[in-house]
Amino acid sequence: MNLKREIESRLEQLNSYALDPKGGLTRLLYTKEWKETQDHLRNEALSKGYDVQYDSIGNLYITLPGSSEEVILVGSHIDTVCQGGKLDGQFGIVSGLIALDYLKSKEGQPKKTIRVVSLAEEEGSRFPYTFWGSKNTTNSANIEEVEHLVDNQGVNFMDAMRNCGFSYSKEKNHLFNNVSSFLEVHIEQGQILEKEKIQIGLVTDIVGQKRYSVTVQGQANHAGTTPMHYRQDALLASSILVQKVNELARSISSTMVATVGKMEIFPNSSNVVAQEVQFTIDLRHTNVSELERYEREIKEEFDAISTQQDVKYSMKKYMDGKPVKLDESLLKTIKDVCRKHNISYKEMISGAGHDAQIFAPLVQTALVFVPSIGGISHNPSENTAIEDLETGVKVLIESLKKLAY
Amino acid sequence: MNLKREIESRLEQLNSYALDPKGGLTRLLYTKEWKETQDHLRNEALSKGYDVQYDSIGNLYITLPGSSEEVILVGSHIDTVCQGGKLDGQFGIVSGLIALDYLKSKEGQPKKTIRVVSLAEEEGSRFPYTFWGSKNTTNSANIEEVEHLVDNQGVNFMDAMRNCGFSYSKEKNHLFNNVSSFLEVHIEQGQILEKEKIQIGLVTDIVGQKRYSVTVQGQANHAGTTPMHYRQDALLASSILVQKVNELARSISSTMVATVGKMEIFPNSSNVVAQEVQFTIDLRHTNVSELERYEREIKEEFDAISTQQDVKYSMKKYMDGKPVKLDESLLKTIKDVCRKHNISYKEMISGAGHDAQIFAPLVQTALVFVPSIGGISHNPSENTAIEDLETGVKVLIESLKKLAY
Repeated sequence: MNLKREIESRLEQLNSYALDPKGGLTRLLYTKEWKETQDHLRNEALSKGYDVQYDSIGNLYITLPGSSEEVILVGSHIDTVCQGGKLDGQFGIVSGLIALDYLKSKEGQPKKTIRVVSLAEEEGSRFPYTFWGSKNTTNSANIEEVEHLVDNQGVNFMDAMRNCGFSYSKEKNHLFNNVSSFLEVHIEQGQILEKEKIQIGLVTDIVGQKRYSVTVQGQANHAGTTPMHYRQDALLASSILVQKVNELARSISSTMVATVGKMEIFPNSSNVVAQEVQFTIDLRHTNVSELERYEREIKEEFDAISTQQDVKYSMKKYMDGKPVKLDESLLKTIKDVCRKHNISYKEMISGAGHDAQIFAPLVQTALVFVPSIGGISHNPSENTAIEDLETGVKVLIESLKKLAY
Repeated sequence: MNLKREIESRLEQLNSYALDPKGGLTRLLYTKEWKETQDHLRNEALSKGYDVQYDSIGNLYITLPGSSEEVILVGSHIDTVCQGGKLDGQFGIVSGLIALDYLKSKEGQPKKTIRVVSLAEEEGSRFPYTFWGSKNTTNSANIEEVEHLVDNQGVNFMDAMRNCGFSYSKEKNHLFNNVSSFLEVHIEQGQILEKEKIQIGLVTDIVGQKRYSVTVQGQANHAGTTPMHYRQDALLASSILVQKVNELARSISSTMVATVGKMEIFPNSSNVVAQEVQFTIDLRHTNVSELERYEREIKEEFDAISTQQDVKYSMKKYMDGKPVKLDESLLKTIKDVCRKHNISYKEMISGAGHDAQIFAPLVQTALVFVPSIGGISHNPSENTAIEDLETGVKVLIESLKKLAY
């Protein structure tokens, strides 16, 4: 089996159902493109003689039965962001399916059952809700959180689901019974592996994320007739706050990241001292107490700076996701595989969220990264060298061989 | 003559031609509102027996002839910004007209001719060109700069002028012959007089203004997967630059003002490190060499900061107005008037531009401020206590008495 050719042809097939005329792939939950892709995977697997099932909401499971009941689950999400790339999500499914074919033909029936899942949704790009797929696989979805959601066309979540032939069920998902572990292969979506010329990233932790919106209230004044010492300049004050947001993250931990990426100024006129500034803070780290320490200390800093600048500020938290630890024994197994095959690897954290974080609290979970060219993702130019994709699949095959046979 | 009642009734009359349904006054150059107001002033003055003339472009002159040829010119601009206040500009015209009536009735014919001018335009609110009125009065307008301008409705400058019955003429404006001095009364548009509880501001200098647009180029990156030390954050870099803009102005002079009031961030997304930031710098001071020093030093600071932050920047100057000194002997005359009538005054600079700066290089020029409540201007709530307006008119009357009789 030529892995490179397998990877390229399977990705091409999946892409063909979701090519966006504006560039890249757009495959949003419960759309025609989405349903056609899932059905393609289903039919292909059926033709190869696998056990194939949808759960009630449309996660697709393709199973190679083992001699024991224990199940190793492998996969990632099939949905994309709008005009996304050809690897984010679906590469994890393709890797699993190639591994399944490879092991079935080369090794025959495994001891443990191997099940590949094409998770319905992770990105939250059509409806403002993420991890719908993995939360249903693991029986941790909450229907109240989605039943009233609508997309930007006004289509209701439940209607969209029904139109694809699926419907939420309160019954437990029996396809998760006996699952002892979950393996996900994904692109890094960052530049660390590329910059350090490393083939594989073995994720030890997925960061927790806190997001805040900050409003700074000053006093609008004439830029010519208001002496500097009479001013309450919301933009000058905010500039000092932005610097502090960055400094504090660096001072607490080399792996903490804090970002001000969005800012709005009012009235935003060149000859008027700014009245009000609104900006966001995106804070991520793997350690809860460090995240809490940051929140505590940044508020103290903001209090002091706003007093000194004679402005008022308010700070609202609108996201608070806990960090997740991945399984150490599974990590060790994969590490041994890399060593044995002379594959360079690095233990690292994931600064982005992944389906693995939904499984990790429930079953042994591993997340394996392959490098991203230029760290570019959520973009049509998202890409990874075919040799690196091949290495990712090899690591998955060899790990499954050790775990399931 | 009851000055307070005169001031209020005349302002009300002028307002009636330009009330904006959305609030405040809107009287833009060469509009119906503008023409009706000028014609009202013209007809009223004719009915009172003054010599009344328009120049070719629509500045209106109302003259009380003296026994000598020498002319003292008094006035300000009749146009407003969109939804402006009831004092910016027209109060200077009303003051002049009240003074004219008062002196004519109480003192009879002056030695020197007193001429009040209602200048066509100063704000640049309809067409992107300022001081059209005073530049034509003083024969310093440049027709090439306006003939191709259009307003936001696509109306051409020359057509708008013709539709009001005016047209540019290359001939010198004979109404400026023999003018030896210009007096302008205006609201401060700042908070200094109010905060210091002073009745009159005597302007010694009008600031020079430099304006720059700055573009800072960084690298867009994922806020979760990009460690702090790999970032080229255009917004963090800009925040440091904004602080330096403010610090440097304070360090050079207590009367220098530098303002960043406008800023745009790209892509402006909470979870993306900023790729590019654009902002403006509005710099004002009365001393040319200090302005040049600021420009030199801020560039050195920006070079150092952008290098240290690993971003690129470019800086473009799009406005460069020289500072103007007002006439000292005229200032002394008005100072003596204030002292004699126990009117509190303060010598100050003007941080905003005024018609006086166009006259100052050519004739003895004085600019007199009355307080602005809360420093608010270019706003429907622009206001000044009636007692302060009365004091402004008194100072003008007494000064003209000394200068013209």
